[in-house]
Amino acid sequence: MGRVVIDVMPKPEILDPQGKAVAGALARLGFDGFAGARQGKRFELEVEGEVDDAMLAKAREAAETLLANLVIEDVVSVRAATEVPA
Amino acid sequence: MGRVVIDVMPKPEILDPQGKAVAGALARLGFDGFAGARQGKRFELEVEGEVDDAMLAKAREAAETLLANLVIEDVVSVRAATEVPA
Repeated sequence: MGRVVIDVMPKPEILDPQGKAVAGALARLGFDGFAGARQGKRFELEVEGEVDDAMLAKAREAAETLLANLVIEDVVSVRAATEVPA
Repeated sequence: MGRVVIDVMPKPEILDPQGKAVAGALARLGFDGFAGARQGKRFELEVEGEVDDAMLAKAREAAETLLANLVIEDVVSVRAATEVPA
């Protein structure tokens, strides 16, 4: 079993009220040094078998078809899950 | 200006209805080969200045305080944004 990680973010030019809310809350909670925030979605797809190029291409197609609204969002990354350092 | 990327996912043992819905929709749309799906959140925080260890520690604290509900979610990654290959 492999895993594919897909990151979807709002397009830069799109107003991101959620990101604005996060940035405001960070400041109110005393976390200074943050100039802005954007919030998107992260998907982990479990894959039967190994993650090869064909599977990554299928995952990208699935992301662009189902997981992202391409009018307002971009699929910024489609990759095999490796243990991203915490 | 630097950027910190924070990934938040539902805890593995927590029921993930959104993930179930995604997995079901993938199958219905003919994307076979996917055994399951989980959906979480991805944040990009704009940072004044460079992203150093102190800033990453502050971002992790902000994530655990504000961006994740630690009862049902885990902060799975806090890292300086590098151009993740699309």
